[in-house]
Amino acid sequence: MVFVDVPEAELRAYRSSVTEPAGFAEFWDGTLAEARAAGGGVRLEPVDTGLVTVDVFDVTFPGFAGEPVRAWLRLPAAALRPAGEPLAAVVEFVGYGGGRGEPQENLLWASAGFAHLHVDTRGQGATWSRGDTPDSGTWGPQVPGVMTRGILAPETYYYRRLFTDAARAVDAARSLDVVDARRVAVHGGSQGGGTAIAAASLVPDVAALSAKVPFLCDFPRAVTITDAHPFREVTDYLATHRDKVERVLHTLAHVDGVNHARRASAPARFTVGLMDAVVPPSTVFAAFNAYAGEKEIAVWPYNGHEGGAADDDAAALVFLRKHLGDPRG
Amino acid sequence: MVFVDVPEAELRAYRSSVTEPAGFAEFWDGTLAEARAAGGGVRLEPVDTGLVTVDVFDVTFPGFAGEPVRAWLRLPAAALRPAGEPLAAVVEFVGYGGGRGEPQENLLWASAGFAHLHVDTRGQGATWSRGDTPDSGTWGPQVPGVMTRGILAPETYYYRRLFTDAARAVDAARSLDVVDARRVAVHGGSQGGGTAIAAASLVPDVAALSAKVPFLCDFPRAVTITDAHPFREVTDYLATHRDKVERVLHTLAHVDGVNHARRASAPARFTVGLMDAVVPPSTVFAAFNAYAGEKEIAVWPYNGHEGGAADDDAAALVFLRKHLGDPRG
Amino acid sequence: MVFVDVPEAELRAYRSSVTEPAGFAEFWDGTLAEARAAGGGVRLEPVDTGLVTVDVFDVTFPGFAGEPVRAWLRLPAAALRPAGEPLAAVVEFVGYGGGRGEPQENLLWASAGFAHLHVDTRGQGATWSRGDTPDSGTWGPQVPGVMTRGILAPETYYYRRLFTDAARAVDAARSLDVVDARRVAVHGGSQGGGTAIAAASLVPDVAALSAKVPFLCDFPRAVTITDAHPFREVTDYLATHRDKVERVLHTLAHVDGVNHARRASAPARFTVGLMDAVVPPSTVFAAFNAYAGEKEIAVWPYNGHEGGAADDDAAALVFLRKHLGDPRG
Amino acid sequence: MVFVDVPEAELRAYRSSVTEPAGFAEFWDGTLAEARAAGGGVRLEPVDTGLVTVDVFDVTFPGFAGEPVRAWLRLPAAALRPAGEPLAAVVEFVGYGGGRGEPQENLLWASAGFAHLHVDTRGQGATWSRGDTPDSGTWGPQVPGVMTRGILAPETYYYRRLFTDAARAVDAARSLDVVDARRVAVHGGSQGGGTAIAAASLVPDVAALSAKVPFLCDFPRAVTITDAHPFREVTDYLATHRDKVERVLHTLAHVDGVNHARRASAPARFTVGLMDAVVPPSTVFAAFNAYAGEKEIAVWPYNGHEGGAADDDAAALVFLRKHLGDPRG
Amino acid sequence: MVFVDVPEAELRAYRSSVTEPAGFAEFWDGTLAEARAAGGGVRLEPVDTGLVTVDVFDVTFPGFAGEPVRAWLRLPAAALRPAGEPLAAVVEFVGYGGGRGEPQENLLWASAGFAHLHVDTRGQGATWSRGDTPDSGTWGPQVPGVMTRGILAPETYYYRRLFTDAARAVDAARSLDVVDARRVAVHGGSQGGGTAIAAASLVPDVAALSAKVPFLCDFPRAVTITDAHPFREVTDYLATHRDKVERVLHTLAHVDGVNHARRASAPARFTVGLMDAVVPPSTVFAAFNAYAGEKEIAVWPYNGHEGGAADDDAAALVFLRKHLGDPRG
Amino acid sequence: MVFVDVPEAELRAYRSSVTEPAGFAEFWDGTLAEARAAGGGVRLEPVDTGLVTVDVFDVTFPGFAGEPVRAWLRLPAAALRPAGEPLAAVVEFVGYGGGRGEPQENLLWASAGFAHLHVDTRGQGATWSRGDTPDSGTWGPQVPGVMTRGILAPETYYYRRLFTDAARAVDAARSLDVVDARRVAVHGGSQGGGTAIAAASLVPDVAALSAKVPFLCDFPRAVTITDAHPFREVTDYLATHRDKVERVLHTLAHVDGVNHARRASAPARFTVGLMDAVVPPSTVFAAFNAYAGEKEIAVWPYNGHEGGAADDDAAALVFLRKHLGDPRG
Repeated sequence: MVFVDVPEAELRAYRSSVTEPAGFAEFWDGTLAEARAAGGGVRLEPVDTGLVTVDVFDVTFPGFAGEPVRAWLRLPAAALRPAGEPLAAVVEFVGYGGGRGEPQENLLWASAGFAHLHVDTRGQGATWSRGDTPDSGTWGPQVPGVMTRGILAPETYYYRRLFTDAARAVDAARSLDVVDARRVAVHGGSQGGGTAIAAASLVPDVAALSAKVPFLCDFPRAVTITDAHPFREVTDYLATHRDKVERVLHTLAHVDGVNHARRASAPARFTVGLMDAVVPPSTVFAAFNAYAGEKEIAVWPYNGHEGGAADDDAAALVFLRKHLGDPRG
Repeated sequence: MVFVDVPEAELRAYRSSVTEPAGFAEFWDGTLAEARAAGGGVRLEPVDTGLVTVDVFDVTFPGFAGEPVRAWLRLPAAALRPAGEPLAAVVEFVGYGGGRGEPQENLLWASAGFAHLHVDTRGQGATWSRGDTPDSGTWGPQVPGVMTRGILAPETYYYRRLFTDAARAVDAARSLDVVDARRVAVHGGSQGGGTAIAAASLVPDVAALSAKVPFLCDFPRAVTITDAHPFREVTDYLATHRDKVERVLHTLAHVDGVNHARRASAPARFTVGLMDAVVPPSTVFAAFNAYAGEKEIAVWPYNGHEGGAADDDAAALVFLRKHLGDPRG
Repeated sequence: MVFVDVPEAELRAYRSSVTEPAGFAEFWDGTLAEARAAGGGVRLEPVDTGLVTVDVFDVTFPGFAGEPVRAWLRLPAAALRPAGEPLAAVVEFVGYGGGRGEPQENLLWASAGFAHLHVDTRGQGATWSRGDTPDSGTWGPQVPGVMTRGILAPETYYYRRLFTDAARAVDAARSLDVVDARRVAVHGGSQGGGTAIAAASLVPDVAALSAKVPFLCDFPRAVTITDAHPFREVTDYLATHRDKVERVLHTLAHVDGVNHARRASAPARFTVGLMDAVVPPSTVFAAFNAYAGEKEIAVWPYNGHEGGAADDDAAALVFLRKHLGDPRG
Repeated sequence: MVFVDVPEAELRAYRSSVTEPAGFAEFWDGTLAEARAAGGGVRLEPVDTGLVTVDVFDVTFPGFAGEPVRAWLRLPAAALRPAGEPLAAVVEFVGYGGGRGEPQENLLWASAGFAHLHVDTRGQGATWSRGDTPDSGTWGPQVPGVMTRGILAPETYYYRRLFTDAARAVDAARSLDVVDARRVAVHGGSQGGGTAIAAASLVPDVAALSAKVPFLCDFPRAVTITDAHPFREVTDYLATHRDKVERVLHTLAHVDGVNHARRASAPARFTVGLMDAVVPPSTVFAAFNAYAGEKEIAVWPYNGHEGGAADDDAAALVFLRKHLGDPRG
Repeated sequence: MVFVDVPEAELRAYRSSVTEPAGFAEFWDGTLAEARAAGGGVRLEPVDTGLVTVDVFDVTFPGFAGEPVRAWLRLPAAALRPAGEPLAAVVEFVGYGGGRGEPQENLLWASAGFAHLHVDTRGQGATWSRGDTPDSGTWGPQVPGVMTRGILAPETYYYRRLFTDAARAVDAARSLDVVDARRVAVHGGSQGGGTAIAAASLVPDVAALSAKVPFLCDFPRAVTITDAHPFREVTDYLATHRDKVERVLHTLAHVDGVNHARRASAPARFTVGLMDAVVPPSTVFAAFNAYAGEKEIAVWPYNGHEGGAADDDAAALVFLRKHLGDPRG
Repeated sequence: MVFVDVPEAELRAYRSSVTEPAGFAEFWDGTLAEARAAGGGVRLEPVDTGLVTVDVFDVTFPGFAGEPVRAWLRLPAAALRPAGEPLAAVVEFVGYGGGRGEPQENLLWASAGFAHLHVDTRGQGATWSRGDTPDSGTWGPQVPGVMTRGILAPETYYYRRLFTDAARAVDAARSLDVVDARRVAVHGGSQGGGTAIAAASLVPDVAALSAKVPFLCDFPRAVTITDAHPFREVTDYLATHRDKVERVLHTLAHVDGVNHARRASAPARFTVGLMDAVVPPSTVFAAFNAYAGEKEIAVWPYNGHEGGAADDDAAALVFLRKHLGDPRG
């Protein structure tokens, strides 16, 4: 626990060296168009959790290339929902290694009155929380983890699929009767935060973005200033595949949160820990400083990758109520 | 992550060498009588959390020697509570280093319909979750942490005070109109599990006990087979204070979960991880095998101190509904 | 560096608890038949390495399901090969994380007069040596690495594919004019050793087996007595997917080196390090003690996972010359 | 072992950002006046150590709020003391975690002819050396250790009490017949060095100050550039109690060695290790550069927190003999 | 900090597998005879330390093969020495990596009235304390290690030379006028303890032996049950030099403290820490249980390699006064 | 794995503070003249390795002061050598801790047609590969370290002897009939790279220099910016021997690769890893930037001390063929 990056004043002025690769917009437009064209409906099955204040549904929606992706939908109990009025919604993405977990976990957003779509992470969910969604395939050698899966081309890279899932999760939420399609926010921490930024880029009319200590930003700097996982997976790959540096950096530019931040416009709240060695603060500021919409950032000087933790959740709740209004009407 | 103790068959037959010290019952009866005699009322103040499905109150109740102890009381929203019917209650204690945390955290039990009294931990709450209750004092040199605070005599030992707080938390819960005094369970993990065992010993008519990977059991073995914190604090103390081994073990016998388990009678559910190096499984089995009431144990062979985690919570919910009935009815 | 397991006398008597699952033979017979039925030829392209004593070819052969697998074929220079006489061959498999590496590496076997087929590792080759062969796909969440890829069923498990590649590599070597099909040995260290055992089970008439510190044996014990990677990946998976222990152990029984050792018959040389925390010695002895053919084992008391290293290679050379004869005649 | 801070030239010019809080002088004047007003005498009891060249006494003197504090007084044997002549004295304070230890330890100063008052550390003395002095109480949650005990206000902070003990230890030494009150120096390493600086501020007419690798200086910088204990305890506290940063820094400013250095005037010798990650060299230079009296500093480029060790002791002996003269005359 | 070996009851019965190699006595008799035959006198030069209670001399005496070895001689100040009466003496050996250190350190024994010969360690003295004596054929202290220097034959092994130095140090002490040759004890901790055992074997009429947590005993077991340095150096050597295990064990048997203990007869005090991972307790008990003279052992259950530390020194002082009488008379 | 030094642009301009000590040339000229004057012939004995493409000889040649030094000479098999034509040669030096290893290892250079003299490392060869050459005055390889052996004077320092061995190894290679004396290159990695630089300084007419991640350069900076071994051995020495800093730096200046680079003139290829914490990149650039001959450097941004590994070997082969021509013609 120590300052791991340049001083805060420099962070606030820092600009990433990442540039948008040629064809970036076409790449993502095409990917998303293809996913939407694949069709497929959203399926909901009620789950018996023993809870009385929150209703939980097991959701399957069409993600990348129409592949089925799982999620939990949590709603305040029917007795607490306004009759005939849809709810504001929070679509949440999960941190590295985790899946959607168990239905009775993570009750904050529904307890606060939101429809809460808690999206699974394809091919993850075997370390700190369980997942139920397989990834679609692999294309070559990879360092353990998914950071280097298919990394030799934007078309095959893992995060192309995950980010498309994320955009389609917003589509899925909006398609529900119980949700007010104009009041859907994206939210997440670490990988979930980076994914939320991408979702706000791919679906620019989301109502708000909440990105806690977002991962996946400013790869060129990140892979040279931290030896912590999961950025480390990329460094390890490059240490062996010395002949593929250019190709890898080209691929990463397509998912880099800095490039997505430049194309997003929803009101945004970022958070950052100045002692975060997993997601160095300059990489967060790289995205924040590039972000094109209205924005604010909470700087936690004495925190690592936990950032503001429960304080961040409480503040995110205030932030989302400000931008989405009373979730129940 | 590896088996850290003797094989499971031996664990199931294992008996601790801990014996009940002379005057054990009198020590605790006197302590509790004194605390109850100190009087003091339970104070509730509503907290504005932004939640709509759960009502939260900031509670102050009289603990050891009548000293004020804080807690959160979480209830299902009024609209979901049966009119004029009290609720079954779960009194929860917290793991080492943590306090009661934030009001909008830990919504499981209230969401399941219980009154949930989430008790602060005196003098802790500065590492992984915040606390708001000071300890009453110190009596001599100590290793960092509270494990050795006042350890030279049962009367001055930190856990005398914490366990008394726990018993008084049960008293406090029972005194509330919203709680059905006959249906109050104690629950917790790690230090919270050890504290729950003590509460079930000191208040033997609690309705049920749920102890996840309980800490604070079988000290004589624990301090010689793990070098992990927090048991390690005791070992470190003894490494310097070589001349006080007998006194320290005498003190510890008064709080040892094995001795408390022998005096408890509520139906109990324990859990244990066979790869738990923080709370070695033999220390959990020492308490479980000694437990005087109806009992069951979930053995997680491939888990460390996280035990069953969300699976344990889901199972605890089933267990408590079995012994306390529908919390709302 | 310390003895990590039971004493050597117990190791020599140790028997694994692993049993052969029903349908084991059919599973592998079917898999191999299907791979052979998929057809496909062996392709060789000469590589310009700058070497003058060894000729190197870039090989592509049909592996699991006929999928293309890469290898290096190294031969003593033409001037040193007997006219019109095929060579004895060594088919070598690689340790965890590695691929076939570079053409000018690993010159021992060709320098000793053997045809040396150095087989790539599908989906690996991004940590300590490069690989060029993609895996065919994934089927669900996985811990980083390949140990848990598709682990919920024998049909989808990663090692079904890798072991089939290994058997087909023997087929490929035998199909070459430059190789004497009756004198083909399998060889490897760690994962390469475990794979060689499987190859000797699937192609029982190989001329010899050399397994250095073989990995992938006696999973039920391994995952409970070491916390080192890569066995640890399985433990980590089970720590989260607590509900799938039976399924996982059932899958693993199909690749367990103990079960394959029971079906092999070629003369075999094993090696083991008594201080090997990565591949605990009991797991090696589990396979060695179960091995059905003529066998010997080199026990290195003071070595970890490096085992005998260069001494093992020198001894393997003597061993293979004894069983295959002069490679050139 | 590596340079852990800015280059030496920058260190020599470095100025801390710490400023003296309003009311600093009144705070300490009042505290000390109160302690002195509490009265209480100095009690000496001879200890049978088996030593023949050094006489040792077990001392109890009144510290903070008059509370009893222990110390050892070591004197050269009576036969070696000048008749009717008092001795120069060294009052020594102890490093973090330690107490006064055993009577037969630490014989240097008495062997060199000084009266040596070796002061215990309240509430410490359970890690590397034993202590016998309890602290007076606690006021709230704390991270393990004493760094955060009572940290929410200057009045309740642990170091208010310890520093007052230190000043009163000088008073106690001066009150002894065997001591020449005009020739009393303060000395210590690490926490003992920081405490000695405070003593030289609170009792400005001490004859000399010797501060080896002094701890407790320049908190605002220290808590952001080292993750080593014990500074880390403060960082850990702030990581959880994010809402109390201002209060904590305000408290710390009252004990910061930089502020005390500005008020001291005795001739001083500091030492610093450029590879000291426990007490980063900039924090030592912060105090040294601010020190108001005559001063010198020994810079050890290749040392960590051990600094000059025995070389520092030898040099401190020369330094004190220079400023206090022959201790015996 | 955890029990690192078999239970105490087994330790008390444990017997090492080490046997005395043929020619052991002749080897050491010849070595010592040769050293004594090399002649050379003991040279003393007074050192100006600034101390007034202890006189210190820089000593050079003839060690192995007559090579010059350094030591400090510390005496109580002349005024405290009985006129015309020699003193009892303590010859002390130093732990691994250290040398005799500085003259003003380690004042305990002279302060207690003994003549204290503090012997340097050839070729060591570059890690935690300085040394001034080169090993044969080298040029001065160097950073470790020496455990494998010349290990292929007893004749060339480092410890042949060090142990001969130790025996000759006793000779040197006895030759001094200020020392009572009948009352010379040997003493040391860790390597110093193992060396003291050897000295008590080579000079069997020393008056007493004090061996704190003695190192260098029961090599065959030690090198397989601890991975801590310095035993680890031998294991590392054997891990590479696999072909020299027999030779190495043969050499080690000549210095093994177990074999020396069998030939010693002075009254002895051993100490051991049950949590000592550097010198596992079974290796200490191996020597203690084999020790041929009157003996006692202090068992510290909760200590590592520090053993009883200051408590051991205090007890050693009592022990030596019991066996040597009042040092001054 | 992270950038461990200043940015690449600064590295390319970086100049070491090391200056050539007075008498540097005379020191080395004298040392080498003395070694050459000591005479002694080169002895070759064929080794039976079982290899058929490479002939291996066990070589003994006169090194420092004429002391016997071992090496392997590997040649392409006689059938592949041009009749009556000598070969170009590669003289290779080994990394820290290693010796020449086994005859059948390291076949690259002979397989590429070169005569390959693989030189042993005096007094090393007991950690990762075996050695057979004792240092002066010792008896064989031992576990490290040698960095501080004889470090108080250039005359006694270990690397004086090793570097002289290296120069004499070039002499030895040139004296062989099978070698073309005009076409001898020096090559090595880490310590072997530093030694190769020294050899190119001491024998300036070598045909080429290949130095992979060379160690032993720019000591004044190295010992203050890395805490990794083996530079750390020097820092540890200086941490204790605080009074000998000047002497030690004076000695080191005689072996510093920067000073040797200034005197070398052969065409050179360096390599460096920007994430190399063992040999920080600035120390490599210090030597490279000072190098007096034609030069090139391969910069591996994402690699640690492995540098380019097999890619470096392949490139070194191309480089040496460019400067030495076809080894066989």
